[in-house]
Amino acid sequence: VHTGMTMPSPVLFLVERDSFVRADPAAAQVRVNDLGLSRGDGVFESLSVVAGVMPTLSRHLERFASSAFALGLPAPDAPCWAAAIRAAIEAHDPVPGLAVTLLLSRGVERDGHAAGAPTGWVYARAARDFAAVRESGIRAVTLDRGFRHDASAAAPWLLLGAKHLSYAVNAAALREAVRRGADDAIFVSSDGFALEGPTSSLIVRFGDRILTPSVELGILAGTTQERVLRFFAEHRFETGTAAIPAGELPSADALWLVSSVRQAVAITALDGRPMPGDAELTRELNAHLGRPAP
Amino acid sequence: VHTGMTMPSPVLFLVERDSFVRADPAAAQVRVNDLGLSRGDGVFESLSVVAGVMPTLSRHLERFASSAFALGLPAPDAPCWAAAIRAAIEAHDPVPGLAVTLLLSRGVERDGHAAGAPTGWVYARAARDFAAVRESGIRAVTLDRGFRHDASAAAPWLLLGAKHLSYAVNAAALREAVRRGADDAIFVSSDGFALEGPTSSLIVRFGDRILTPSVELGILAGTTQERVLRFFAEHRFETGTAAIPAGELPSADALWLVSSVRQAVAITALDGRPMPGDAELTRELNAHLGRPAP
Repeated sequence: VHTGMTMPSPVLFLVERDSFVRADPAAAQVRVNDLGLSRGDGVFESLSVVAGVMPTLSRHLERFASSAFALGLPAPDAPCWAAAIRAAIEAHDPVPGLAVTLLLSRGVERDGHAAGAPTGWVYARAARDFAAVRESGIRAVTLDRGFRHDASAAAPWLLLGAKHLSYAVNAAALREAVRRGADDAIFVSSDGFALEGPTSSLIVRFGDRILTPSVELGILAGTTQERVLRFFAEHRFETGTAAIPAGELPSADALWLVSSVRQAVAITALDGRPMPGDAELTRELNAHLGRPAP
Repeated sequence: VHTGMTMPSPVLFLVERDSFVRADPAAAQVRVNDLGLSRGDGVFESLSVVAGVMPTLSRHLERFASSAFALGLPAPDAPCWAAAIRAAIEAHDPVPGLAVTLLLSRGVERDGHAAGAPTGWVYARAARDFAAVRESGIRAVTLDRGFRHDASAAAPWLLLGAKHLSYAVNAAALREAVRRGADDAIFVSSDGFALEGPTSSLIVRFGDRILTPSVELGILAGTTQERVLRFFAEHRFETGTAAIPAGELPSADALWLVSSVRQAVAITALDGRPMPGDAELTRELNAHLGRPAP
């Protein structure tokens, strides 16, 4: 365990088709004409590793493959990626929590098309410490995502529900939230349904019911979201997915944004109005999510 | 002038704040944790240089600055970028046409934020030869862009009208067009207005009127689009911007998609139905666009 001021170094493995090789993350690794960079044309995943265990590895690999399919990228070789992830975890200095990113881009461009194999890598680094925000909660604002709740099925080229590299709107939404004096955002469909956060899933409590927006609304199938629903089901809540009108959020008994690395954070104020919550329940939920369970 | 089989090498200048330095485009230049890559968080421009002249340099630099502003990036130093572009053009082997890309990303990430200066570069390479497609035209399909025509003003975080790196949807739309047996796409707002192509502006002819969708619809202000309107105005057409219902496109007398490097290409079929056109007028338009006029 590190005790000094030195941060442990990130670990990088480049993945090409079915093999991987260690590389220096402090050095440049990508050419300027890689389509992942010039056009945001690629997919990614963010995993949380606690004490060497990845509770949701298979779900992340499934979603990685599903995102790649949505973008017409070659299917990632799951055993190879799993091995590269394990190698990155083993190569990293021991830390309380590790954040691991998988990335697969369309690769280097020539004459308007990908010239060769996709560019891929596994990047592992010490996770940021979100303990304080898990305790304090966050202020959120609702922001229009611009799409109708049913846009996804009719227009798959909008790539709704795929975890792709074109995340500029998510970053812009977070900046807008900060501009409004908040910390995070909840996207709302143009016809008024609550969707998700820019980098998280939304969990809503009404009494003893726990709801989360359905993936049919064109949102990401959250891996942590699934674990949260199971936690609540085991704690005798009624759980389910639904189309939740954003207008009903202020009357919820609790709202959380959940994601792999930050885990569950309670929303203490929505659009400037205080929200109720249950600090003890949030603590139990995070203890569950932080446990290196299978 | 090159006559052999060897392609002239691309030229790369890295730009940091107000200075630039030549670098090797065949080598990796970008770190894996650059936010331009991991989140599509950055902006770009594509310029066409014919015989050393850039007819629209100031417009491209203005739009580059405007895109950077929309994303909350530091304002690019225009004189520095102009000098880097000129240096790249001078350093490149002489070719009939040069395609120059400017890119500015948020830079390398640390703890969820940009750790230092934005990553920037100017990349120049021989333009692809689009002479054949300018002559033959293309088949296009209309595809829903998912946003209402008025989404942009109310929701600036959607970054509509900014030329950012998050272009995965544009690439997906082009794949969908190919899947439908076409070559390109025209995006349509969710409430039925014609917008733009994934990498081009739309020009519509009704008799002696030339119309193009208004930028208020949340589309890119095309630099070539402006030149095309001036060309038609000088040729005694009535020109203007408008909200054009997509349902009116099939009754147009001609449709073109226009962009800096490919220039103007006529749409010969829309959603599988043949479109009329004017081959001679298209030739005159492209001769105008290809001329190294100021």
